[in-house]
Amino acid sequence: MTVETISLNRSHGGMQGVYRHHSRQTGTAMTFSLYVPPKRDESKLPVLWYLSGLTCTHANVTEKGEYRQACAELGLIFAAPDTSPRGDDVPGDPAGTWDFGLGAGFYVDATQPPFARNYRMWSYITEELPALVAANFPADPNRQSILGHSMGGHGALTIALSHPGRYRAASAFSPIAAPSQVPWGIKALGGYLGEDQKGWRKHDAVALIEDGARFSDLLVDVGDADPFLKEQLRPELLEAACAKAGIPLNLRRQSGYDHSYYFISTFMADHMRWHAARLKA
Amino acid sequence: MTVETISLNRSHGGMQGVYRHHSRQTGTAMTFSLYVPPKRDESKLPVLWYLSGLTCTHANVTEKGEYRQACAELGLIFAAPDTSPRGDDVPGDPAGTWDFGLGAGFYVDATQPPFARNYRMWSYITEELPALVAANFPADPNRQSILGHSMGGHGALTIALSHPGRYRAASAFSPIAAPSQVPWGIKALGGYLGEDQKGWRKHDAVALIEDGARFSDLLVDVGDADPFLKEQLRPELLEAACAKAGIPLNLRRQSGYDHSYYFISTFMADHMRWHAARLKA
Repeated sequence: MTVETISLNRSHGGMQGVYRHHSRQTGTAMTFSLYVPPKRDESKLPVLWYLSGLTCTHANVTEKGEYRQACAELGLIFAAPDTSPRGDDVPGDPAGTWDFGLGAGFYVDATQPPFARNYRMWSYITEELPALVAANFPADPNRQSILGHSMGGHGALTIALSHPGRYRAASAFSPIAAPSQVPWGIKALGGYLGEDQKGWRKHDAVALIEDGARFSDLLVDVGDADPFLKEQLRPELLEAACAKAGIPLNLRRQSGYDHSYYFISTFMADHMRWHAARLKA
Repeated sequence: MTVETISLNRSHGGMQGVYRHHSRQTGTAMTFSLYVPPKRDESKLPVLWYLSGLTCTHANVTEKGEYRQACAELGLIFAAPDTSPRGDDVPGDPAGTWDFGLGAGFYVDATQPPFARNYRMWSYITEELPALVAANFPADPNRQSILGHSMGGHGALTIALSHPGRYRAASAFSPIAAPSQVPWGIKALGGYLGEDQKGWRKHDAVALIEDGARFSDLLVDVGDADPFLKEQLRPELLEAACAKAGIPLNLRRQSGYDHSYYFISTFMADHMRWHAARLKA
């Protein structure tokens, strides 16, 4: 597995890289960013995976996330994958919308044509990319954690709930908490996984918890001025599911904040400290 | 003077705005961003002006500058203007390059046709915009300071040196220290001000100091991996001029850093603390 370096910039004492490689899961070139903090005594460092939202690439959080200072202080690698396969041969939404297809992989392995060949973001994020990162960077595979925003918050929660032994911490900004019950999720899960909603439950944080998935504890921030809060995100469904299942959830409704990186960057360092405490425990 | 709000987002406890207004100096609509930190006891807050570099708009530093956390902690307003007039009627570089014309106003009042009508960034930055900001935001006109990057570092230094009573502090990232002596500056000052180099000296930090301008002290960061360091920036000329004039200059050559916002964002909070100490003295 060769990794091509697209750019490499010193920042906050460490190195912010952008890399490209051929993915056998998606059958395409995939781009990701990865920040390595300044050297410390440890030879291997914990890895924090950040999954981005609809329409994003690795670049949004890399440019606007304000995570590097906290990475440098806490000694964390920060890895930001893309949100879907891309390329001339990759089918997108025939209707050309932004909430399905390119930039909107929803972190599932698609089963439906014509998406099944390339849209394998679940396996890419949980298997292929962690192995590639462990092989090419000073990353400790035994200390990984995951967070994300919006569609990526959905991805972080479902991946963490499905791998409680692998990810030591999980958090989300503005996650799509119950995709089976909201328009974005119904469109995406139907399109990628087909109309049988039984197959959707593995990709819905609330359904996973209802079906028995557990996690040590979760941190979720939402903005109360987020225009997607009531129709698409529905954190109250996650809150109810966690309460019923006995999963400690720290759900913070942040006053006046919206869905943007102005919100995410405000609380990014908070989330990173939450992760660092659990990665080092 | 009416100010139109383009966007307003809560961030780090304060409000990040982007605004547009008609400028009588440039004869065009002008866009700027302005961050107001969370409320404090003071009714008026100090203003930190940030001047951007070639090709930039207000957006680069607004998205990538990582200044809001420090603004919130220190109680500073952060204002980021555009780098030139823009619009269908504004003449750009006939050759279509990126280092002259649109996005490259060099913070001068042009005297040469066809630029003299619109390219009045000196008066816009030093007179029109400060008055507009003081009239529309909780900004204290008696506590202003200025910093900038590259072409904007040139702007910050020349404006501060020309108004030592008005700006209480000045600093720069990777400034074009002596534009009269380097290709970017020779092209721009010649194009906007004409071939008589006597007129350039007011717009060259090194020449201003040679001609008697003084300032309390200056902070300048450059990256030693900056590809423009030796041909375009030439901080050693500023160092020599300050030494000869007795101006305390803290020139830091940062190892491994380049010309990008990955560099700027690393040291932004440092600069803001430098400014805050002088704004509150």
